[in-house]
Amino acid sequence: MDKEIIKKIKGIVGRQRVLESFEERLCYSYDGTVQRGIPALVVFPENTQEVAEIVKLANEKEFPIFPRGAGTGLSGGSVPQDRGIALVLTRMNKIKEISKEDLLAVVEPGVITEVFHQAVEKEGLFYPPDPASLKTSTLGGNVAENAGGPRAFKYGVTKDYVLGLEVVTPQGDIMRTGGRTVKNVTGYDLTRLIVGSEGTLGIITEITLRLLPKPQAKQTALAIYDKMENAAQTVTAIICEGIIPATLELMDQTTIHCVENYLNMGLPLDAEAVLLIEVDGSPGQVVEEMKLVKVACEKNGCRQVQVAAEATERDRLWKARRAVSSAIVQLKPTKISEDATVPRSKIPEMVRRLKAISTKYNLYLPVFGHAGDGNLHPNIIADKRDHEEMERVEKAVAELFQAALDLGGTLSGEHGIGLMKKTYLVWETGDVGINYMKAIKNAVDPKGILNPGKMF
Amino acid sequence: MDKEIIKKIKGIVGRQRVLESFEERLCYSYDGTVQRGIPALVVFPENTQEVAEIVKLANEKEFPIFPRGAGTGLSGGSVPQDRGIALVLTRMNKIKEISKEDLLAVVEPGVITEVFHQAVEKEGLFYPPDPASLKTSTLGGNVAENAGGPRAFKYGVTKDYVLGLEVVTPQGDIMRTGGRTVKNVTGYDLTRLIVGSEGTLGIITEITLRLLPKPQAKQTALAIYDKMENAAQTVTAIICEGIIPATLELMDQTTIHCVENYLNMGLPLDAEAVLLIEVDGSPGQVVEEMKLVKVACEKNGCRQVQVAAEATERDRLWKARRAVSSAIVQLKPTKISEDATVPRSKIPEMVRRLKAISTKYNLYLPVFGHAGDGNLHPNIIADKRDHEEMERVEKAVAELFQAALDLGGTLSGEHGIGLMKKTYLVWETGDVGINYMKAIKNAVDPKGILNPGKMF
Repeated sequence: MDKEIIKKIKGIVGRQRVLESFEERLCYSYDGTVQRGIPALVVFPENTQEVAEIVKLANEKEFPIFPRGAGTGLSGGSVPQDRGIALVLTRMNKIKEISKEDLLAVVEPGVITEVFHQAVEKEGLFYPPDPASLKTSTLGGNVAENAGGPRAFKYGVTKDYVLGLEVVTPQGDIMRTGGRTVKNVTGYDLTRLIVGSEGTLGIITEITLRLLPKPQAKQTALAIYDKMENAAQTVTAIICEGIIPATLELMDQTTIHCVENYLNMGLPLDAEAVLLIEVDGSPGQVVEEMKLVKVACEKNGCRQVQVAAEATERDRLWKARRAVSSAIVQLKPTKISEDATVPRSKIPEMVRRLKAISTKYNLYLPVFGHAGDGNLHPNIIADKRDHEEMERVEKAVAELFQAALDLGGTLSGEHGIGLMKKTYLVWETGDVGINYMKAIKNAVDPKGILNPGKMF
Repeated sequence: MDKEIIKKIKGIVGRQRVLESFEERLCYSYDGTVQRGIPALVVFPENTQEVAEIVKLANEKEFPIFPRGAGTGLSGGSVPQDRGIALVLTRMNKIKEISKEDLLAVVEPGVITEVFHQAVEKEGLFYPPDPASLKTSTLGGNVAENAGGPRAFKYGVTKDYVLGLEVVTPQGDIMRTGGRTVKNVTGYDLTRLIVGSEGTLGIITEITLRLLPKPQAKQTALAIYDKMENAAQTVTAIICEGIIPATLELMDQTTIHCVENYLNMGLPLDAEAVLLIEVDGSPGQVVEEMKLVKVACEKNGCRQVQVAAEATERDRLWKARRAVSSAIVQLKPTKISEDATVPRSKIPEMVRRLKAISTKYNLYLPVFGHAGDGNLHPNIIADKRDHEEMERVEKAVAELFQAALDLGGTLSGEHGIGLMKKTYLVWETGDVGINYMKAIKNAVDPKGILNPGKMF
């Protein structure tokens, strides 16, 4: 990278917050996918003003900026491309405010999701979004990719909790969107536009998040099914009872086998599916709802259902679900984790199609995920050193996207487009949709400074 | 309007769906505000194709289009300006689908909100957004203005229920945004951008709405306070108990007087405030929550609290709140209904400032509204024929906007900007925000065909 630019950047953030060596830059060349891209420079701003000055400089000298948090993304959204600088926001990690009265918090983008969960729960409050990466992912990354998680079925995804943002625009101006009120219809909803825009429309430097009172009680059930069909019917039956569980997780037989081989916790290897169902709310509500959940399971051909009210018991039931990601990579080292999402009623058909794809291309394809909102996680387990296999993987991925769209679903429920799915975007949005999005991008970032090459 | 254009439009929709006479056009020159603008032509399309053809023609001949539903808006958002055609979407009023399994509905924009409420509730489902205009307003209008309502405190506003849209772009192309799944992060969130864009970024021709199971039980309480202070403290106390009531409505003394004079239902004229609190959910939950609500009221200096579980009893308590709009216009004929919104904790201070403004300008200024989310409705009651008074009204409005912003609030919680608040928009968004919005508008509607003159 141009020495003069590096000098100017050091002038803005100080030399100790700039990394230049190949080895250091290598550490910021990837996220949670197979995508790689070594940045020309790694920069750690500590406040909004520094971010704004760097973006202004980028516009003047025309170099691209790739904002990132912890790099746990699953779409390549934060992976740098040639010549660009990686702008790492992890040092902007202050929780500025938690207001019990206004049910909101104000945070910097680098706050780790789990740290935030603990901070608000200590106040008797609740921030529902719970992406699987929450132990390491940052709130800024969650917002930029609009992260979901198991609790999204009842509580919605990240965008449903963002009240307002402070954003550095692609021109380097500081902009405030939304605010501190749940109701705000003042002008276009730029907050919602920037949430999930993967760092292409602005760099998030402050987030105002809506909070809820912490649910007082919880109960969890593990239901075992001989037939996937029956598990899917149960999901519908529970909803028709008027119940929205906090989480409604599904594991298919391949996943059950992986977890059992990994943990030996006595999961039934002959079961086609397992449902993990958690209800929360007021103590009375939880008892009422779990009673109806149990009936719905039994009425719909469930072989066995265990209910846990105590924390330790609940953890035991969750253990299998939490182990899935580690368990499935025991099969082979490379995990291509997809999040194609279908309308709830199409889950059985989607699972059938995934099985067919797995057979057709002779690939490991365990299916698990958030059955409540149709957000399955078909994971293809392969070995990236096996090129012939990776070609089959590519074909299989394309077919599973097509299957999701055929069933009225979407390419991505919670991971985003980034680099991984950009070639498929047009399948869902059509040319009209993509052109509308590109028009917006070009209007606010004419020089293509922010995260170029992503999404489109 | 150019005869040749009129001929072409008749060719698209048929002559019987075009209104030309002055008297007929006059009927489409206003909404719920004092704004007026007579369209050059009134057109009633019946399907998306017709809308698209009209927009393409508008681009070719460069005439503006002002889309509208029932014209109940409170910001002037749908009021036509010179030379334009009023595009009335009320004939596109089919409910295309209600899916219990997928918890969603697909509707045309002309469906009346209350008709939709009844249709989904018949299926045991629930669509929370409940703007006061729901008996006449259309879902398309609700989406275009992102309507709220009393239930927004617990359930959110219209945007929280829009899963997907079919939109005719300002260029006349047909675009689909979002879809049928709650989770969707495929590209920019154009759905949320178009919701609340007041017909300036596209014409909504189909809406996919998220539904909830219908809450099984409800209880309502009416709490009477000697001091406004105590009513406000109660709101906070209830939330700190971990309860989010379905509605939490406030009426100040002026409002109480208006309602009592109008209905003679025995409201206490010496009370400074009344709270109407409704909790809903499972039967057990409702009982638990109302118990805690009652305690919170009594602990915070409530003079008297009546609780109603039965429908007829609940209706009696709601009667006062529902009569407010009719009651306050008994003072004077012109109602300037504002919706400045502040963070919940700032309600007492906002009410104090509103009282001061009312005194300073010697105007009737009853305050009521949605205390739960800080969305108060300061209504200025005047006579538009009295020019001197209307000048004082204008000054008072500007001051109440400034007060809301000073307290970290917003110009508009649920009515929108339209024509009424456009001159104040910059106070909240700043130049950077407005320029970002204008860049988007100009990028997708370079000729300024859709609803020009609104918002900016």
